[in-house]
Amino acid sequence: MTSNLGGASTGGSPDRAPVDLNADVGESFGRWRLGDDERLLPHLTSANVACGFHAGDPLTLRRTCETAVAHGVTIGAQVGYRDLAGFGRRYIAVPPAELAADVLYQLGALDGIARAAGGRVAYVKPHGALYHAVSRHPEQASAVVDAVKAYGELPVLGLAGSAFLDAVAEAGLQPVGEGFADRAYLPDGGLVPRGAPRAVLTDPVAVAAQAVELARGGRVRSICVHGDSPGAVESAAAVRAALGDLGIAVGAFA
Amino acid sequence: MTSNLGGASTGGSPDRAPVDLNADVGESFGRWRLGDDERLLPHLTSANVACGFHAGDPLTLRRTCETAVAHGVTIGAQVGYRDLAGFGRRYIAVPPAELAADVLYQLGALDGIARAAGGRVAYVKPHGALYHAVSRHPEQASAVVDAVKAYGELPVLGLAGSAFLDAVAEAGLQPVGEGFADRAYLPDGGLVPRGAPRAVLTDPVAVAAQAVELARGGRVRSICVHGDSPGAVESAAAVRAALGDLGIAVGAFA
Amino acid sequence: MTSNLGGASTGGSPDRAPVDLNADVGESFGRWRLGDDERLLPHLTSANVACGFHAGDPLTLRRTCETAVAHGVTIGAQVGYRDLAGFGRRYIAVPPAELAADVLYQLGALDGIARAAGGRVAYVKPHGALYHAVSRHPEQASAVVDAVKAYGELPVLGLAGSAFLDAVAEAGLQPVGEGFADRAYLPDGGLVPRGAPRAVLTDPVAVAAQAVELARGGRVRSICVHGDSPGAVESAAAVRAALGDLGIAVGAFA
Amino acid sequence: MTSNLGGASTGGSPDRAPVDLNADVGESFGRWRLGDDERLLPHLTSANVACGFHAGDPLTLRRTCETAVAHGVTIGAQVGYRDLAGFGRRYIAVPPAELAADVLYQLGALDGIARAAGGRVAYVKPHGALYHAVSRHPEQASAVVDAVKAYGELPVLGLAGSAFLDAVAEAGLQPVGEGFADRAYLPDGGLVPRGAPRAVLTDPVAVAAQAVELARGGRVRSICVHGDSPGAVESAAAVRAALGDLGIAVGAFA
Repeated sequence: MTSNLGGASTGGSPDRAPVDLNADVGESFGRWRLGDDERLLPHLTSANVACGFHAGDPLTLRRTCETAVAHGVTIGAQVGYRDLAGFGRRYIAVPPAELAADVLYQLGALDGIARAAGGRVAYVKPHGALYHAVSRHPEQASAVVDAVKAYGELPVLGLAGSAFLDAVAEAGLQPVGEGFADRAYLPDGGLVPRGAPRAVLTDPVAVAAQAVELARGGRVRSICVHGDSPGAVESAAAVRAALGDLGIAVGAFA
Repeated sequence: MTSNLGGASTGGSPDRAPVDLNADVGESFGRWRLGDDERLLPHLTSANVACGFHAGDPLTLRRTCETAVAHGVTIGAQVGYRDLAGFGRRYIAVPPAELAADVLYQLGALDGIARAAGGRVAYVKPHGALYHAVSRHPEQASAVVDAVKAYGELPVLGLAGSAFLDAVAEAGLQPVGEGFADRAYLPDGGLVPRGAPRAVLTDPVAVAAQAVELARGGRVRSICVHGDSPGAVESAAAVRAALGDLGIAVGAFA
Repeated sequence: MTSNLGGASTGGSPDRAPVDLNADVGESFGRWRLGDDERLLPHLTSANVACGFHAGDPLTLRRTCETAVAHGVTIGAQVGYRDLAGFGRRYIAVPPAELAADVLYQLGALDGIARAAGGRVAYVKPHGALYHAVSRHPEQASAVVDAVKAYGELPVLGLAGSAFLDAVAEAGLQPVGEGFADRAYLPDGGLVPRGAPRAVLTDPVAVAAQAVELARGGRVRSICVHGDSPGAVESAAAVRAALGDLGIAVGAFA
Repeated sequence: MTSNLGGASTGGSPDRAPVDLNADVGESFGRWRLGDDERLLPHLTSANVACGFHAGDPLTLRRTCETAVAHGVTIGAQVGYRDLAGFGRRYIAVPPAELAADVLYQLGALDGIARAAGGRVAYVKPHGALYHAVSRHPEQASAVVDAVKAYGELPVLGLAGSAFLDAVAEAGLQPVGEGFADRAYLPDGGLVPRGAPRAVLTDPVAVAAQAVELARGGRVRSICVHGDSPGAVESAAAVRAALGDLGIAVGAFA
């Protein structure tokens, strides 16, 4: 993996595709609230909406899709393991045929809700442990890719430079690489593990600075801000403002 | 409610719409098998496929849809309460907005899987306790109807002569009335409650005879055979054969 | 139902049993946090700990029990319907044999965890929709009572003056009547429905005043403060302080 | 791992502890039935009763415990991952603190139900993917062992000769090694993987012969028959009869 931060900067050059700003939303469940989607969504260009397996009851998903549509934010399906208790953050050795069907089910469920809200699912992003598993377990990567192809050829959002996005491209789907505005990077371009000190940036200024660096580096098409971090809304607003001030175009990839 | 069995018979008259034969399928869940869908499906014209809330894991749904498509059987969404432990047979006082979102979620999920199998969801049928609740709780009926309209104007299968189908018609959707080949009827047209003696017919000959009576009575557009009753496959085969022998056309309504 | 608030006051007379102060805790689930149990628990004498069916993952329950034990707070089992999506607030028509087994399962689960933390389950309180259902559905009341007797004769906490507590007493179990410090009462002693204006008191001073009135009225043995209301910790602290200032003894009933 | 089948035979010598016969039971869930527990239980000396996480609704558990008690069969807690959709057969990377709490919860829940039935949980056996994980993931083994110790020092049943049982012994708990009457063994004592041809023995005569070999080999204290295999009841009966005919004492270890 090469660094997503360094490299020659071309800033807001007119021939550069606009940079996308994504975050996870729709992750409340019944009585339990998570994130401030109403305030976060207006700052995003792409919304990774949970699909009910790791988070997101149907009414939450419907309201989230309605808000996304109202703000012109592109809707993506944030597919995950069936694991409410673990919030999809625990690796599960799901056999490929089961995983593909699970992904297809989630895609259809969210798309039905998105369409009733006047939108549609326009891309797919694996969530949590599945996000990492698809780079380490090729058979799970294939299962996700097969499901996306069976559903209808949507772009797939994942870690820029990852083996998973290679598999996505090989399958003929559009890979979209992302970087993290609020996660610290290692010199080799990998992420500092969550447990380590300063793994997560919480200062909106630092988050915005890293987002600008990512956008100028040109190696990522989308920048992710975590919706449930402390100060998530402020960070997203700061990122959006910094990119705007520097003339870096912001827009959805899908 | 008037009797679904009596009335002037016009038998297999050529101007009569063909009668539909439906059953619940896709109700296995993970390790647990229920029904013999592979053998039952070829006898049906409409398959009420579970949607994962009362039964049906995604891989089961996918295989069931593939089998339905292979046999040219129309796929319907058998939507239910979120209640695996109760198999959707326990009334739940779900607030209307939640219920509508739950139905929309299930519709989309199954449709995504059906489309990947080369089919699509062509109608909706409430399952279990929801099947009965929609005739007793108008706000739950409205929630189901609203969800179907929001998804895209599908026909709705329900108890012939029920208040629910009236609500379906008033909402501008197509109501499809069904009778039960294997449930005993009361003189007033109601069903003998499940707990009562002889509430369920298990002899294929008796089931077939009642199906013929229902078809000739002309008050039902579809006939339901229970997929998980003892001898379900034999009953469905007997019904199909009897209707064929008597020249009563059989065909899906959707 | 007679008013729980009025009546001759005997204040902190020495022959009066101390008043208990209870609240719902342990209602987080996985990634989702609810309530500030760490800060709330020190103000309570009895903790209604969720049992995993409407809320409460096992690790949350374990930590909650450890905190309760550390503060000398009595642990009760807050049993509910199996309904994470509805937080146990939706009535479910669970057949009595199933409900009794569900209650027994929850009781044992929490007791195992409480004992590992150095405590034990000392009473039972139905949660949410079940709390109300046991006064309207005698067969569900019997199921809960049967389970408590089968488990081992624990006191049962419920709405003071309710039909449910009558059933508890008839079964030979100890009924414990509670009033609500932060819910508005009707003149007849019933609760103002949640949807109505000012149904829930949020001002700590008003909550404390009502708690004092309830304690002096002498018709309730326990006073409930809602753990997930805004200002719950402050309300509980205010109640505890007011009772102390007025010389009203506070202590667990079990 | 050394072979569990070979070794000097001492048959039914009077100084030999009786051999235990165990099987998984209580694995139905709601509408879904699995195994014929009523007929299987009388042939067993130890019943591994599911605890609700991978299978087993509370009413099923209650009836299973009642049947076990009626036949004098010892009850064990078959603890597993929280994974109904996968029947506990998919590895889940559950962090140790969560896994320990999950095990404790299951132990308490089943024990409450067993005690209401006049019995008690007398041992613990990990189920499915957890059964294998505890030999490959030491931190999951420790979590299970810690939970058992926190609950109250029960014997633990596992694969004879496994690293897991070593961890159990090191923790001061009683390890109980089992062999499989109906699984083919490799020359080195390992099990033929489930996917391979003839991995599972289904002929009752062959199953009984292997059980006798295991019992005489003296390296296993308990023999497992799978309750949901085809012919499970017949196999268990044949094993019991063969052991009896050869004078090999049969009895629970706990």
